[in-house]
Amino acid sequence: MRLFSIPERNKEIGKQVKNYIDTLTKPVGSLGRLEELAILLSEMKNEKFPSVSKPGVLVFAADHGITEEGVSAYPQAVTEQMVLNFLNGGAAINVFSKQIGALLEIIDIGIASDVGHEKLVNKKIRYGTANFFREEAMTKEQAEAAIEAGYAEGIRMVNRGIQCLILGEMGIGNTSPSTAIVSVLSKKDVHSVVGKGTGISTEQLVHKGEVITQAIQQRKPKRCDPIDLLHKIGGLEIAGMAGAMLAAAEHRVPVLVDGFICSTAALIAKEIDSKVVDYLLVTHQSVEPGHTTALELLGKEPILDLGLRLGEGTGAAITFPIIQSATLMLKEMATFSSAGISDKNR
Amino acid sequence: MRLFSIPERNKEIGKQVKNYIDTLTKPVGSLGRLEELAILLSEMKNEKFPSVSKPGVLVFAADHGITEEGVSAYPQAVTEQMVLNFLNGGAAINVFSKQIGALLEIIDIGIASDVGHEKLVNKKIRYGTANFFREEAMTKEQAEAAIEAGYAEGIRMVNRGIQCLILGEMGIGNTSPSTAIVSVLSKKDVHSVVGKGTGISTEQLVHKGEVITQAIQQRKPKRCDPIDLLHKIGGLEIAGMAGAMLAAAEHRVPVLVDGFICSTAALIAKEIDSKVVDYLLVTHQSVEPGHTTALELLGKEPILDLGLRLGEGTGAAITFPIIQSATLMLKEMATFSSAGISDKNR
Repeated sequence: MRLFSIPERNKEIGKQVKNYIDTLTKPVGSLGRLEELAILLSEMKNEKFPSVSKPGVLVFAADHGITEEGVSAYPQAVTEQMVLNFLNGGAAINVFSKQIGALLEIIDIGIASDVGHEKLVNKKIRYGTANFFREEAMTKEQAEAAIEAGYAEGIRMVNRGIQCLILGEMGIGNTSPSTAIVSVLSKKDVHSVVGKGTGISTEQLVHKGEVITQAIQQRKPKRCDPIDLLHKIGGLEIAGMAGAMLAAAEHRVPVLVDGFICSTAALIAKEIDSKVVDYLLVTHQSVEPGHTTALELLGKEPILDLGLRLGEGTGAAITFPIIQSATLMLKEMATFSSAGISDKNR
Repeated sequence: MRLFSIPERNKEIGKQVKNYIDTLTKPVGSLGRLEELAILLSEMKNEKFPSVSKPGVLVFAADHGITEEGVSAYPQAVTEQMVLNFLNGGAAINVFSKQIGALLEIIDIGIASDVGHEKLVNKKIRYGTANFFREEAMTKEQAEAAIEAGYAEGIRMVNRGIQCLILGEMGIGNTSPSTAIVSVLSKKDVHSVVGKGTGISTEQLVHKGEVITQAIQQRKPKRCDPIDLLHKIGGLEIAGMAGAMLAAAEHRVPVLVDGFICSTAALIAKEIDSKVVDYLLVTHQSVEPGHTTALELLGKEPILDLGLRLGEGTGAAITFPIIQSATLMLKEMATFSSAGISDKNR
């Protein structure tokens, strides 16, 4: 994989912003996490008064051969059907993107069929991954090409002037490669990180855990080689999201990470260039058990915990207004001296 | 105290909405807390597709004689100074109210001085409470009048067409009466519920706990008599917020409860008419230790936990977009049948 050039976060400006926040008309520290977010955003954007508006949302869609093994609650055809739903404006991510005034693009990076819709961005690398229980998910060249495709879409959003990037995905079966990747990277047993995804039964969950365990034993992915992980396990939308994260980080654009699949993509991006982590904000705690492990590996605390497990970027989109609140606090509040307010009496 | 007439939440419509949510294009239950919120709002508003926009924000300001005892980090004059900051648009609640497009009113229900600003709503009951460490905070008549003043402001907001009510407060020293009320209602020792408020030292915290403990011993408020609690402890903004909650609940308008002081007002409102609780959504977990106890007494789970302790209604305002997301999910998402999407394969 080629190199990326991600700048350091500007810690110096972060210190200045922290001092400035302490002059705003509120008790020091009383806006908790919002204050931390404002400082982080300043450091990322290298600006004293960063803005996150307008946001952009990229949803990468792809299929997974592993669905042949009965690991998912929904048939593979639902990927294409949901993508059409995105394109027609009926899905949750459409509703929340509209609420926050975001640019929204849907990218076919590996749907198993030809969708053929003018609004769908065609970056198809292949017609779904191969079943990684039986063979490699894709070639190494395809894994790199999927990262580059995601990178190009990230750059395109940056060039359209977005100030913050939300990533989402659609891919029936994609909790399986995510679980496999998190299991390999964390060296934790599959059964301790596997979850019910879109809603399989407890019996199916045991089966899913066994399939993934055996698949890892057979594919033997190299833990410290992100391209090998994608090559042997997948998936194409995970690679695409990782590429888009690297693009955003190169341009100091904060990335709002959604749930389990998106956090897995963040782990892949981190393995490619660990500096990317500096530009990631994990928006929420998913109920998928592997997410906790993924967040430990990323060293991130989620902002919300609302029992979400939908994907599509929805959790990130609904967190956006809170991140915006942090920037507005910084930009619009009066200071003690400008408002003529007494200091503490001690 | 007179009676209020709060309707029951419509559980029947809640069941219909739950069934409808299960037809939306997402795995059943995958939007977690958002789905619960949509159902609750439907039940409150007696509507299948409830809206929470436009929101209204009422900030009640009042002073507390107990500040004479050195229980607060800031001098009493800061109440008036911060109220002027609200009226000039420089405080956090101004910024967040503007972000969510809310109507905002600031009410003087008992500031210790005459502020004299045309935009300030004058409902002054008295010039601050008396020091409840030494005497009753106010008369019983004043406690009832403060509730009625808050009720009238709630009705005025309802008549202006707001679809959801955010309550906030400003009052240097007001964690002290709140701590006393929560201690009395929960029968918990003051020292287990007292906190640092706007930011006193650990030494001052011990002193604050002792002052409140002794004040309760001397005032002997009756636990099951909310008017007696306000009469003996205070405060005026707590009474005002309780009155506004009762007004909103009578008109099926959801109330977004902010932090510790606002939750204490909710406990007073609950003691007046327990049905009010049906219309309250607690927006966030404050870092003030008594808040956890207050939420136990209310039987509520907060939506966010961002380490906030500012008050003014700020935590409720920044939670508003998430509550709006829940209503938009319900109103704007496609169903599986309208979008032509396959059902689960089991």
